[in-house]
Amino acid sequence: MSVNTRRTAEGAAVATQAPTAPAAPTEPTTPATPTTGPITREELQLASRNHAMPLEMLRWPVTPLGMHYLLVHFDVPQIDPVSWRLNIGGLVNLPHEYTLPDLQHRERRTCAVTMECAGNGRSRLEPRPVSQPWDQGGVGTAEWTGTPLAPLLLDAGVSPDAVELVFTGTDRGIQGGVEHQYARSLTLAEAMSDDVLLAYEVNGQVLPPQHGYPVRLLVPGWYGMTSVKWLQSIEAIDHSFDGYQQLDSYRYTQDADDPGEPVQWIKVRSLMAPPGVPDFFTRQRTVEAGPVQLSGRAWSGKGTVDSVEVCVDGVWEQAQLQAPAGRHAWRGWTFTWIATPGSHELACRATDSTGQIQPETPEWNYQGMGNNDIQRLTVTVRE
Amino acid sequence: MSVNTRRTAEGAAVATQAPTAPAAPTEPTTPATPTTGPITREELQLASRNHAMPLEMLRWPVTPLGMHYLLVHFDVPQIDPVSWRLNIGGLVNLPHEYTLPDLQHRERRTCAVTMECAGNGRSRLEPRPVSQPWDQGGVGTAEWTGTPLAPLLLDAGVSPDAVELVFTGTDRGIQGGVEHQYARSLTLAEAMSDDVLLAYEVNGQVLPPQHGYPVRLLVPGWYGMTSVKWLQSIEAIDHSFDGYQQLDSYRYTQDADDPGEPVQWIKVRSLMAPPGVPDFFTRQRTVEAGPVQLSGRAWSGKGTVDSVEVCVDGVWEQAQLQAPAGRHAWRGWTFTWIATPGSHELACRATDSTGQIQPETPEWNYQGMGNNDIQRLTVTVRE
Repeated sequence: MSVNTRRTAEGAAVATQAPTAPAAPTEPTTPATPTTGPITREELQLASRNHAMPLEMLRWPVTPLGMHYLLVHFDVPQIDPVSWRLNIGGLVNLPHEYTLPDLQHRERRTCAVTMECAGNGRSRLEPRPVSQPWDQGGVGTAEWTGTPLAPLLLDAGVSPDAVELVFTGTDRGIQGGVEHQYARSLTLAEAMSDDVLLAYEVNGQVLPPQHGYPVRLLVPGWYGMTSVKWLQSIEAIDHSFDGYQQLDSYRYTQDADDPGEPVQWIKVRSLMAPPGVPDFFTRQRTVEAGPVQLSGRAWSGKGTVDSVEVCVDGVWEQAQLQAPAGRHAWRGWTFTWIATPGSHELACRATDSTGQIQPETPEWNYQGMGNNDIQRLTVTVRE
Repeated sequence: MSVNTRRTAEGAAVATQAPTAPAAPTEPTTPATPTTGPITREELQLASRNHAMPLEMLRWPVTPLGMHYLLVHFDVPQIDPVSWRLNIGGLVNLPHEYTLPDLQHRERRTCAVTMECAGNGRSRLEPRPVSQPWDQGGVGTAEWTGTPLAPLLLDAGVSPDAVELVFTGTDRGIQGGVEHQYARSLTLAEAMSDDVLLAYEVNGQVLPPQHGYPVRLLVPGWYGMTSVKWLQSIEAIDHSFDGYQQLDSYRYTQDADDPGEPVQWIKVRSLMAPPGVPDFFTRQRTVEAGPVQLSGRAWSGKGTVDSVEVCVDGVWEQAQLQAPAGRHAWRGWTFTWIATPGSHELACRATDSTGQIQPETPEWNYQGMGNNDIQRLTVTVRE
């Protein structure tokens, strides 16, 4: 069948590209500087192809497949699992080439992980960094199954000269005027963490193409850009990786020239499933008067969530916390609100075990990274 | 567990609402009139929560779960499958109440169906109707499994006085200032068509919540608004259904006061998987010179696709057609293009067995329905 033929041909073509092939210079297409202007066509295009988790999905402890947030920098690649290989090389004693069954026959582990896009909340900033225009839905929790990375690195025998490991995906395109395959690095210590997986299943199913089939990196607690999809190679290098997605993108910066600091761990955050019923177009909420069970989820990459508070019309009170679904998964929370007729402002905020608390106002930065500002929503209660 | 308790409570609360409960009048929030202005915040919100199929997914004959387009008018409801019931009533001799296992034990059928949102292409119109701002990704093909509807209607014994059947979903909200549960009707003849299913699986899996769990209507060949999700009741009535989603929305109209014509069958359309690699932000494509295999899919609700033509810089030629995946599923097509350096415009258009052909320019209407205009994309070929 011609479809299969094309799949194989594409997979093979990709497999012959060296992961560190020199970038071909092209016309720069870096997004414009932050703006207070209207939403652009380019932002709308990105919002359409990159999927947010609608906030009512916070009612599910594990996000159903298809509702987890999804950000794909370039195109979803079509990969032939038979010809697919994972190469572990560079500064290692024993370079390895693994097939998918090789990885599936190693130690198998399942872990519930809350993943969030580093740019979640970007469109709430003023001025607005012009990129994927997330509101608050760039998040989800999934049960990922795979094999731990550390034993693979031990088998390869990473050289003492190695400083970082570069994880390169199959997805290729142009960003910031540079053509490249998506790639990110971790230090050896970060990569050796017991939590880090090479995942080949999600929610008990084979990874769907858009989540990195056949194998993706999974780094629990870090923003999603770290968990490289469609993994093709892991290369040990003796310097800090200077790829576009490491050195230029995913930085906390103040202007275009600021090298800034790298984006890493997920900041503390809580979100509420909007109560009542929505208006189709405005998404404004209408709630019946009486007791309303407010609920949501809260998470933090590095610490554990210690408290969630709910605010009704300016008064903060403690919410009830549920047990987390796992060390790296969000905690459910509930709060009973006695709703009285009229307009009310609801909000929630979380505090974690490291003392982090969500800020009242967004912490602006040039790329719109790590905005964990407090969610506020106005609802109308009718008699 | 409190999550389960909440699920059951919500399911039960919903089950007590009569499907034809009178609409509560609320402040009108109908979208603004068509505009030539910038994208609004409300449109961005809708684009984020309603998922488009990224066009590279045209490479898959069956759209992977999570990549099929999704439009949810209100919220995805959380339904307890144990307490869920489907009621068939109204003008019938034997009203029935079915559990999920009741339906699963009836005749089981699987059908590959291309489904498209009636508003697909809306944001390409000028002036732009202000609603879910689809570009071209409001489409997908899935293998749906369920039980045929016609035998259920025969078992119920629909009265000779019945004119239409009203299909009501569990999802509730406000649209056009009217609070209602999503509901659509079919004539008895339409509903008795052998193709119409009550679907409980998609792509071999239990329906995920967002696609209508536990059971949805599936009307192959019709735009997606017909295939009511989270189905709660089927009611035979002796008049034409006048619900908001039937009489006000989903109409081909010329202005706000025009009753117009109902939106029904999917118009003929073809789309191309964009060749080469994308720029992250602009999605502009860069292609290597030499032979390029262009490919895509084409479909039509009522007829079969007879031809697909590809246009390169103004010259139309026939593409190669593949066998359709089913009577109601799209056909793949391919076309080998010898790409030469420079900028080129590519386009494709389909013709179906009823003589329908995609128009050169969009057929504008007030709600932005059924825009099947020709896809055109400009690509840069480098040496």
